[in-house]
Amino acid sequence: MSTLVKKDDPESDPRVKAVFDDIRATRKSDFINNIWRYLAFDPQLLENTWGEIKSVMACESAIDGQTKEMIYLAVSIANACSYCVHSHTAAAKARGMTDAQHAELLAIVSLAAKTNHLVTGMQIPLDEVFDCDQS
Amino acid sequence: MSTLVKKDDPESDPRVKAVFDDIRATRKSDFINNIWRYLAFDPQLLENTWGEIKSVMACESAIDGQTKEMIYLAVSIANACSYCVHSHTAAAKARGMTDAQHAELLAIVSLAAKTNHLVTGMQIPLDEVFDCDQS
Amino acid sequence: MSTLVKKDDPESDPRVKAVFDDIRATRKSDFINNIWRYLAFDPQLLENTWGEIKSVMACESAIDGQTKEMIYLAVSIANACSYCVHSHTAAAKARGMTDAQHAELLAIVSLAAKTNHLVTGMQIPLDEVFDCDQS
Amino acid sequence: MSTLVKKDDPESDPRVKAVFDDIRATRKSDFINNIWRYLAFDPQLLENTWGEIKSVMACESAIDGQTKEMIYLAVSIANACSYCVHSHTAAAKARGMTDAQHAELLAIVSLAAKTNHLVTGMQIPLDEVFDCDQS
Amino acid sequence: MSTLVKKDDPESDPRVKAVFDDIRATRKSDFINNIWRYLAFDPQLLENTWGEIKSVMACESAIDGQTKEMIYLAVSIANACSYCVHSHTAAAKARGMTDAQHAELLAIVSLAAKTNHLVTGMQIPLDEVFDCDQS
Amino acid sequence: MSTLVKKDDPESDPRVKAVFDDIRATRKSDFINNIWRYLAFDPQLLENTWGEIKSVMACESAIDGQTKEMIYLAVSIANACSYCVHSHTAAAKARGMTDAQHAELLAIVSLAAKTNHLVTGMQIPLDEVFDCDQS
Repeated sequence: MSTLVKKDDPESDPRVKAVFDDIRATRKSDFINNIWRYLAFDPQLLENTWGEIKSVMACESAIDGQTKEMIYLAVSIANACSYCVHSHTAAAKARGMTDAQHAELLAIVSLAAKTNHLVTGMQIPLDEVFDCDQS
Repeated sequence: MSTLVKKDDPESDPRVKAVFDDIRATRKSDFINNIWRYLAFDPQLLENTWGEIKSVMACESAIDGQTKEMIYLAVSIANACSYCVHSHTAAAKARGMTDAQHAELLAIVSLAAKTNHLVTGMQIPLDEVFDCDQS
Repeated sequence: MSTLVKKDDPESDPRVKAVFDDIRATRKSDFINNIWRYLAFDPQLLENTWGEIKSVMACESAIDGQTKEMIYLAVSIANACSYCVHSHTAAAKARGMTDAQHAELLAIVSLAAKTNHLVTGMQIPLDEVFDCDQS
Repeated sequence: MSTLVKKDDPESDPRVKAVFDDIRATRKSDFINNIWRYLAFDPQLLENTWGEIKSVMACESAIDGQTKEMIYLAVSIANACSYCVHSHTAAAKARGMTDAQHAELLAIVSLAAKTNHLVTGMQIPLDEVFDCDQS
Repeated sequence: MSTLVKKDDPESDPRVKAVFDDIRATRKSDFINNIWRYLAFDPQLLENTWGEIKSVMACESAIDGQTKEMIYLAVSIANACSYCVHSHTAAAKARGMTDAQHAELLAIVSLAAKTNHLVTGMQIPLDEVFDCDQS
Repeated sequence: MSTLVKKDDPESDPRVKAVFDDIRATRKSDFINNIWRYLAFDPQLLENTWGEIKSVMACESAIDGQTKEMIYLAVSIANACSYCVHSHTAAAKARGMTDAQHAELLAIVSLAAKTNHLVTGMQIPLDEVFDCDQS
């Protein structure tokens, strides 16, 4: 049950087909998951979203791929996005997250949430030492 | 400006002093930041919070220390805890996060928030392939 | 599956019947959706909630009806309320939101979430020019 | 620094004066805190907001006054509203919340946040026994 | 559908069995709900989570048991954790929350959310009188 | 106080200068607010963020400019981003939002938050009529 109509044959639109082909080539898999199938309702939004995901998550960069997926998953949990939690748990596992690391990620995320709420409840002032601002 | 009274001499309480001593020993630094100074209003809450932070964040484990701090920071941003964002940015830098990694973490966290909201707006169904549940 | 018992015949209570009649008259439709059917467990809460919705959303005012529903939908996405996202997407469409506007709303909401997280991660100071406060 | 202009003499508007008088009479205090002073920019919004606060929070009801303020405070922490955390901590203390209860409230709120994130990360299915829904 | 594999026979692990036995003894019930069955994938996380829940929620303390569950429920609603809303509504009812108190809790939680958003939208300054900080 | 070092002379970097020049030209104003000054620490992140803001918010599209800013503001309030609330209140006013519309936006956003929490607390099932999904 979605707020959008999923198209029956999204790849009949050449812009959609080009994105789906790039997803398959980048991931070396024929599987296209639902976020892309539903985003096909608006080819511009589909192109922009995939383009940004590919640029930030699939390329070589300063943070390794597994860590990137674990950070993405942590944010998705905090924002209570059920679909995103599922898809990025799967992505993190595909990039090497072990069961022990999964358990530890859950421990870190939930501990962070705990102290986030504790600190917000206390409304404590910032320590001067944290100031990075030169202005 | 806090919702709690910060004690003038928190270490006159031996339970508080024991925690502060352990913080200094664990971090190899004399600096005690405000979260611990304010938590001193309740020694039990102070002991429990530090104990859990030390156990999850300071010990050898399946995820390296810098990655743990980056995950903690990501959650703190998503939960909009200003103090926590400052303290865990500092902690991640202290454990080796470079400026390039900091910029990339911000790009990942903000992209995750973007797709979290996009997916919540679309209310798309889960793909069966994500199911890890055997029950 | 709800945390409340849905009554079998809610309109046997005259206070509930009066609210349901007003919903039908205001919307020019016989359909009563589940939020009202479940709120019928407490007639006071039902009356207050419908009264406020009617006053803010159904009356002539400074913002046109379609825009009001799009703002309501945007907040519901940000607060991750699945039922609300569905019901207010339907309401916005009923008031004229086109598919192109729906796609653009999703683009705006997700971009806002992205920069919200980016700014919270950077903890940047307010520009003086934003100050509207005369005190 | 606010997004609104605070009026110099808000009580020159008789609708504002009537609300402020009722706040003073209800609270048996001459002090009017900033939420009401800023809401004076729109007398209708001021009247509605105070009316609802008075009805839910100030009247005799099924939950005692101190507990009501502690629930309000818990939500304000979870929603990261700094002003609300301050004002409702003060209100809960005014209604009898002790330091020990304050510490315990912070422990409960932060533990709830911890398990909220843990459960969202695990995406566990509902137990049938929780079902209250007869439909 | 979960992000974790639920073990077929979790109590074959003696650490898991010890926790489950303590849950049954503490609650005087044979029923073990899903959060514990899924947490069994990591005995350490299971032990820590149950230990903290038992310590904060099940023991005699400065706040009575029903109020503690209502505070826990309020936070779970604000954090949009569906499973937690179900389980802590059940727990609050088991500890004596009446239908009238349930309706009133929903009224308080939703009013708090309303003024949280209103105040965040206005960005009003703190009143000096709220300052508890002596530093 | 920020988590980043603000550069003394950001426009000495030609990539930063090009973005700042485009901001000035697009907005027909010499003023560059802090989000762009701080983002200058990473020219790639600056270019991407400005490019997306310009594309979504500054161009002719299916939703008029003032409505787009009001939707952006609504999300920023829900996500509790103080800087964003200030900057997008200013932007919405610059695009024509009147005081009456501002008051009404606050009423809609806070009412949406109220019913979001109410519905999440009730965990009501979706009405079949909301289903847009053909799959």
